Amino acid sequence: MQIDEIFEADRRLNNKKRITPLLNSPFLDEIADRKIFIKAECLQHTGSFKFRGAFSAISSIPVEKRKKGVIAYSSGNHAQGVALAAKIHEIHATIIMPEDAPEIKINNTRDLGAEVILYDRLSESREKIGERISEERLLSLIPPYDHTDVIAGQGTIGLEIASQADENGIEKADVLVCCGGGGLTSGIAVALSKLMPNFVTRPVEPEGFDDVVRSLKSGERQTNEKMSGGLCDAIITPTPGELTFPLMKKYCGEGIVVTDEEVMKAIALAFTRLRIVVEPGGAVALAAALFHTKSYNNETVIAVVSGGNIDPDIFRKAIELI
Amino acid sequence: MQIDEIFEADRRLNNKKRITPLLNSPFLDEIADRKIFIKAECLQHTGSFKFRGAFSAISSIPVEKRKKGVIAYSSGNHAQGVALAAKIHEIHATIIMPEDAPEIKINNTRDLGAEVILYDRLSESREKIGERISEERLLSLIPPYDHTDVIAGQGTIGLEIASQADENGIEKADVLVCCGGGGLTSGIAVALSKLMPNFVTRPVEPEGFDDVVRSLKSGERQTNEKMSGGLCDAIITPTPGELTFPLMKKYCGEGIVVTDEEVMKAIALAFTRLRIVVEPGGAVALAAALFHTKSYNNETVIAVVSGGNIDPDIFRKAIELI
Repeated sequence: MQIDEIFEADRRLNNKKRITPLLNSPFLDEIADRKIFIKAECLQHTGSFKFRGAFSAISSIPVEKRKKGVIAYSSGNHAQGVALAAKIHEIHATIIMPEDAPEIKINNTRDLGAEVILYDRLSESREKIGERISEERLLSLIPPYDHTDVIAGQGTIGLEIASQADENGIEKADVLVCCGGGGLTSGIAVALSKLMPNFVTRPVEPEGFDDVVRSLKSGERQTNEKMSGGLCDAIITPTPGELTFPLMKKYCGEGIVVTDEEVMKAIALAFTRLRIVVEPGGAVALAAALFHTKSYNNETVIAVVSGGNIDPDIFRKAIELI
Repeated sequence: MQIDEIFEADRRLNNKKRITPLLNSPFLDEIADRKIFIKAECLQHTGSFKFRGAFSAISSIPVEKRKKGVIAYSSGNHAQGVALAAKIHEIHATIIMPEDAPEIKINNTRDLGAEVILYDRLSESREKIGERISEERLLSLIPPYDHTDVIAGQGTIGLEIASQADENGIEKADVLVCCGGGGLTSGIAVALSKLMPNFVTRPVEPEGFDDVVRSLKSGERQTNEKMSGGLCDAIITPTPGELTFPLMKKYCGEGIVVTDEEVMKAIALAFTRLRIVVEPGGAVALAAALFHTKSYNNETVIAVVSGGNIDPDIFRKAIELI
């Protein structure tokens, strides 16, 4: 994985992705006693960074093969990203989603024109279903993270962070990234390791689903005990990716683990102080920036808010904390 | 009022204001059967466009006079804008606020370093209090809208809309603007009348507080019967400004009036579809774009979302509509 692949993904995404703003608030700085900047990727098309990787991957499939359509398996955000990216390319998308995914994500995926196939997260393997259908229909599989073009697409956020950090005079920073399978984290880490050698990319995970944090500590890929049931549904993955883990091992600093309570507080503070809507999985990095200041060293921290597709009931509970 | 004054304000605000994004969603387009773009000014510093006008006005006061400090009267958003702009200029700010303003706005204004003086909206005149204190302390009064440098500051949003419309290939559009005293509306209208002759700027007001809409219709400044009690507290003003009304008369199209119910729906849709937090007064233009399509003619509409400082209880009620 080279930074050139990220630059190429960035060219394919030109005028398609939204360049999301880098936000800040004196009130958040005060809580952390640090300068906190927030890369508001919840404002990306479909409400999460996943659109970038999906579009990057679809746009790099040879035209004839692409016309046959694409398939993806996802708990929600990747699904919507693939659906919209397929729609823009005017091709068919088949999406395999767990039946316990938030209803709004299932509906949105359908409304974006995709065919949705539901499966049982506990008894079936989405990978096996995906492979079978894609062979039958000659579809191109767009995996959620373990794919070079997907990682390169997510890495375009790293390019934007580098240029926005320049504009804001940020020379040294910890860059905290919400981490599931590691596509977003490794893409950003590759970009920043070249462009911003004084930046350290740090994966952040929710308690109980900290496979990447433990894997980086032990040097070997670790797995999570549970496969579902967490508040941060969007970033629950069994284990770091085969492609993403070596990249994170090479380019990332130590990981950080946050609690569900910290995540809910971060969602509430993003509401009052930044006026953005953040989903639990998308808030873990902001939670770490606000409440785990002892886990990082730089006086400036950049937290990537990776998504904003939250269940209204959970959001209501979060803002009751104000 | 010339566009050159807006260009000058833009230079003073360079690197101080946030260039807020122009957002969109296929789901909103579908509701209105139009292309809807949203200028997300709720993402501005302090959560509303008011920072622009306040900074523009303070930065144009001669240095020696400025050092003595500034004073403003405001129901909340102008207060926070003036407080932050004064802080950046390292001068003292005195803010006169109604005692029934949302608590969060009063607290934020104090936390931004301003001295807050509360008054009774029904029995006292904020203008008289403001004039008395500013004479005693030799402060410069920063009015909320009826001031050339304030209007020029708000007009910088018009410059951004023009350039973002170009990027998005928008050639003709209705531009709907949340309207209180008319500073934002007239500033944007002046900018767009010169830069985008095919754009029509249209003030939008909440039912019961439609002084500008009625004034434009009759050709004379009209007043509202009530002075408080509406959902859209941030944009309740007695009558159009002396400076802003002639500008709106010259440069604006017909106004639009929306109901509180439409405002609440617009807040809910901004939550699910744009992942931004919008306050009632900041949502009237989006409500008009979504639900009053018969009131405008162009196939593309740009709605300015002017602020995001909402009471959490009202926000919870809005998202219950989903």
